[in-house]
Amino acid sequence: MKGFFPPKSATGRSALVPSPPWYYSGDLLTIEYRTDPARIAELLPAPLTLAEEDPGAVALIWADWQSCGESREELLDPVRSQYRECFAVVRCRYGDRTFSRCVYIWVDKDFAIARGLHQGYPKKLGSIHLTRPHPYGPAPRIEAGARFGATLAAADRRLAEAVVTLREPAETNGFVNAHPMAHHRWLPHIEPGRGLALDELVESGAAAFEGGVPWAADADLRLFASPTEELSLLRIEEPIGAYYRQVGVCWNGGTLLASATSAANTA
Amino acid sequence: MKGFFPPKSATGRSALVPSPPWYYSGDLLTIEYRTDPARIAELLPAPLTLAEEDPGAVALIWADWQSCGESREELLDPVRSQYRECFAVVRCRYGDRTFSRCVYIWVDKDFAIARGLHQGYPKKLGSIHLTRPHPYGPAPRIEAGARFGATLAAADRRLAEAVVTLREPAETNGFVNAHPMAHHRWLPHIEPGRGLALDELVESGAAAFEGGVPWAADADLRLFASPTEELSLLRIEEPIGAYYRQVGVCWNGGTLLASATSAANTA
Amino acid sequence: MKGFFPPKSATGRSALVPSPPWYYSGDLLTIEYRTDPARIAELLPAPLTLAEEDPGAVALIWADWQSCGESREELLDPVRSQYRECFAVVRCRYGDRTFSRCVYIWVDKDFAIARGLHQGYPKKLGSIHLTRPHPYGPAPRIEAGARFGATLAAADRRLAEAVVTLREPAETNGFVNAHPMAHHRWLPHIEPGRGLALDELVESGAAAFEGGVPWAADADLRLFASPTEELSLLRIEEPIGAYYRQVGVCWNGGTLLASATSAANTA
Amino acid sequence: MKGFFPPKSATGRSALVPSPPWYYSGDLLTIEYRTDPARIAELLPAPLTLAEEDPGAVALIWADWQSCGESREELLDPVRSQYRECFAVVRCRYGDRTFSRCVYIWVDKDFAIARGLHQGYPKKLGSIHLTRPHPYGPAPRIEAGARFGATLAAADRRLAEAVVTLREPAETNGFVNAHPMAHHRWLPHIEPGRGLALDELVESGAAAFEGGVPWAADADLRLFASPTEELSLLRIEEPIGAYYRQVGVCWNGGTLLASATSAANTA
Repeated sequence: MKGFFPPKSATGRSALVPSPPWYYSGDLLTIEYRTDPARIAELLPAPLTLAEEDPGAVALIWADWQSCGESREELLDPVRSQYRECFAVVRCRYGDRTFSRCVYIWVDKDFAIARGLHQGYPKKLGSIHLTRPHPYGPAPRIEAGARFGATLAAADRRLAEAVVTLREPAETNGFVNAHPMAHHRWLPHIEPGRGLALDELVESGAAAFEGGVPWAADADLRLFASPTEELSLLRIEEPIGAYYRQVGVCWNGGTLLASATSAANTA
Repeated sequence: MKGFFPPKSATGRSALVPSPPWYYSGDLLTIEYRTDPARIAELLPAPLTLAEEDPGAVALIWADWQSCGESREELLDPVRSQYRECFAVVRCRYGDRTFSRCVYIWVDKDFAIARGLHQGYPKKLGSIHLTRPHPYGPAPRIEAGARFGATLAAADRRLAEAVVTLREPAETNGFVNAHPMAHHRWLPHIEPGRGLALDELVESGAAAFEGGVPWAADADLRLFASPTEELSLLRIEEPIGAYYRQVGVCWNGGTLLASATSAANTA
Repeated sequence: MKGFFPPKSATGRSALVPSPPWYYSGDLLTIEYRTDPARIAELLPAPLTLAEEDPGAVALIWADWQSCGESREELLDPVRSQYRECFAVVRCRYGDRTFSRCVYIWVDKDFAIARGLHQGYPKKLGSIHLTRPHPYGPAPRIEAGARFGATLAAADRRLAEAVVTLREPAETNGFVNAHPMAHHRWLPHIEPGRGLALDELVESGAAAFEGGVPWAADADLRLFASPTEELSLLRIEEPIGAYYRQVGVCWNGGTLLASATSAANTA
Repeated sequence: MKGFFPPKSATGRSALVPSPPWYYSGDLLTIEYRTDPARIAELLPAPLTLAEEDPGAVALIWADWQSCGESREELLDPVRSQYRECFAVVRCRYGDRTFSRCVYIWVDKDFAIARGLHQGYPKKLGSIHLTRPHPYGPAPRIEAGARFGATLAAADRRLAEAVVTLREPAETNGFVNAHPMAHHRWLPHIEPGRGLALDELVESGAAAFEGGVPWAADADLRLFASPTEELSLLRIEEPIGAYYRQVGVCWNGGTLLASATSAANTA
C-alpha cells in the first residue's frame, strides 16, 4: 500500500496529495489590523499565549496559488494545481518564541484541504476571489495606484471583502505572518467521550522562498457575520497596513513541538 | 476552546462539523459486481485479508443525502446539509470477523470530508449526480421499470456512470456494504521520514437505521480511467446485482480496533 | 444545420436545449407577500400596468427540478436534468387580462438559462438550496409542522433565505404565479445606439400539469441587499401566505402578444 | 426601465451585463490544426461557405480573462470579472470577405454567457483551466521551454486537454481567429413551428487591442467524445501551430450583415 495520503493503493497514485516537498507560485494580498487581544487569546489553546508585542495584530491574507509536488505534473493539468485561499493569521507565544498561527482558513480545492490537515491549518471550503495583475487591458499592473479587490464567501454567504490600493515598494510583506507557524493537529477519538486521538503542536515554515518586491498598500476591509463563522469577531479596531507580493514557496515538512497523544488513546 | 473539529473557538460554532450523533436522510443506489480479488487484496493493508466468501465482490454506491447534527439546524440552511457521494466498498477479514471497507469515495461538500476524516473514509471532492424519484412528471416513481441514472466525476473527468432499472422489491439492499466498516485513520508525521503520526484501525456502523423496502434492479455500469484515480482498476468481471433504497441513518462513533500510533511518534 | 438552440450542427445534438415540449418534475416552495406597488410598477414596461387587485403582491418561489426534452435522456444523465431556481413573480395587466410575470430569477445550470431566454425569464446564475422532503431520517415529511429551509445566493452574496413550516392542506398553491406568464424577450441591436433587435411580449404557461395537494405554510423570509441585485427593493410590507407543492409540468411554447421588432432594425 | 440586458429595472443595475464597451485583460493559448473541411462546411449555414485557402483550419483557444464595463467596478469584485473560456474557431466566406467564426464555446460565468448572446457566440457552461505564467516558484515564466496545460470539461466530461511548450517569439498569434467574426444571433419563435424570431448575421471584432509578443509553441492536443458535444468531430488531421499571448481588448458592438427576421414573425 502506497500513498502519502488516503486513499492509499498499490501504486500510490490515487493519494489526494503526494508527499512533500510541495511547491507553490502565487500572489499574496495581506491586510494587517488590530483587534481586541481578548478575541485572539480565546483562540489560543494552552500553553500558547498572546504575543508579547502588539498582541491584537491580525493578518487577513488572500492567496491565488498554483501548486504541485515533486513531479510537477499537476501544473499541466491545472484543475489539480490552481486554487485560492483566504486565511486569518495571528501571533502567539510558545515557550520563549513567537509564532504565527492560522486561526481560520478557506480554500477551494480538496488537495488544499488535505495539505492543511497535514500542516494543521483548520481548512474549510470557500469561494475566494482576488484581482490578478495583468500587463494589458483594464486589470491592474503592479504599480502605485493599482487597485485589487478580494472577496471571501462560504456556505453562500460573503464573509469578507477588501479593496487594496498599492502605494509604494516596501521592505516587508507584513509582520503577523512572518514567523514560523505553530499549529495544532487534532483528531477526535473514534469512541465518544474519549477526547482526542491526535493532539499535536507542530511547527513549520517555508523550506525555500523567493519573491518579488513587496508593495505597501492602503486597504478598505469589511468583515461580515455568519451563523457558522467567527471571522467577524476579529473586529477591525485599527488598521496597520496592507501588502501585495508575488512569491514562490517550497514546503517540506515541519517539527513536532509537543504531543498529548497518549497511550490512553490506544486500544 | 470548543469544537468537535477545527477550527476550534471560544464558542465551538465555527467547527466544520458538530460532535456526533450525526443524522442522515437519503437515497442509496447500490451496484454490486465481482472483480479480480487481487485488485481488492492490494487495497487491504495487513493484517486485513480478503473475505473468505466471494472475495472479489465490490459495491459501488451513490447516495443523495441530507444530514445534520443534534441541533438539526443544518436542515434549515440546506447548503449545510445536502450533499452527494459515490463510494466503492469491498469486504475484508480482520481477526475472525468480516467487515465492509470503503476504498474510494468522492463527496461534494467540506463537512462530508470532515466527517470522513473522523470515520476513516478516504474522501476526495467529486461531482456526483443521481436521478431522484418524484411522484409527478417525468422523473421516476419507485416502481418496477423505473430507471435511475448515476454519474461520478472528479477533476473534470467522468469516472463512472450507471443506469439502473428497478425490477421488484427485494429482501436486502446487497451484502457487500452490510457489515460494520473497518477503516484506517492515517495521518503522516509532520517530520519527513518518520512515518505515520496516526495509524488506527477503527470499526463503526449505524447507531440507528430505518429504511423503506429495497428494490432489486438491473444495472448497466461503466468505469473510466483517470491519471489520478484507480476506481477503474476494480474492473467489472461479473455483475452481481443492484439495489435502490431510501434510508434514515444515525451515526454515533465507533470502536478502536488497533492502533500503531506509538511513543516513537511523540516529540 | 440542426438544433433548436445554439450551437447548431449537422446533427443538432450539440444544441444547449432540445426543442419543446419540455417536461419537469419538481418541488415548489412559494412565499407570497405584499410590497409597495410602486416597486412593482417600475418593473413593468409599458403597456403593462399594475394588476387591478392586490397590485403589490409578490411571490418568491424556490423550485428543485428534474427536467428533460421529448427523449427524456437527460433524466439518465442527471447532471443534465437536475437544477434549482429561485424567482420573484408579480402580476400585471395587459389589455383586459391579468398575467403573472417573473421579474428576477436565478438558476444553477446553463440549459435552464437557455430555456429562460426562449421563454423570456431574465435568468442569472445563482446558488439555490431547498430542503427536500424524505420518508426516513431527519429530513421533513410533507405533513403539518414540517419545516423547510430555502436560500438564494448570487456572486457570493446571500440574497434571500426562508424557513417555511407546513400547516395544513390547502386548496391552492397561491395566486400570484397562477396566471399565464407575460414576458419580454429582448436582445439589443448589435450596433450601438440602435435600440433593440428583438422586442417581443410573449405569453406562455404550462401545456400540461399534475400535482399533489398543496400545503399552506407559515414563512419567515428575509431579503438581503447586493450591489448587483434589486430583489431586496421588493421589501416585505405584509406577509400573505406560503405554500409547498410537488408538481409535474409540461411546457410547449407560447404565443406572441406583441412585437416591436421592426424593419428599422434590419440591415 | 433601464438595463442593457435583462433583468431590466428602474435603475438598470440589475442587468446581467452593462452596455458596451466591454474591456478585457487576458491570456490566450491558441492551438491551430487542420480537420476534414467537410466537418467545417456542415457547421456553416448558407450563405456562408468554406474559406478559400486552408478551409480545414481550426483554432482551439483557451482564454483566462478579467473583464469589465465602462465603470470598471467589476475588477474590484472579481467574482464578477474573472472567467475562463475555451472556444473553437473556423474561417468562412461571406460575400467576398473571409471571416472567423466561433462554432463551439464554453465559459464559466453567466455574464460571459450574456455577452455571448449579444455577440452571437454559442456559449455553454464548462469547466476551463489554463496554467498561468508566474515570475516565481514552479509555474512557468513566458520563455522558451515553458509548458502550459489547458483543459476543458462540460457536464462532468473532459472534452479537450492540451500541453503547450513555448518555442520562440513569433510574429503572429495564428491566422484562424485573425479575421472579424461572422456570427449568427438566433432565437426560436415562441410559437412552435414558426421558425426563428431572430435570425441575424452580425460582424464584430475588437474596437481596440494591445498585446505582448506572441510566442510560437508546440502543442499536444487531445479531443474526447461526449453524447452532447461535437467538438471531437473536428478531428485533428494535421497540426498547424500553437501560440501564447497576453492581450488587452475592448469590444464595442458590431455591424448587422444580414437579417432574415421578417414581418412574418410578428404578431
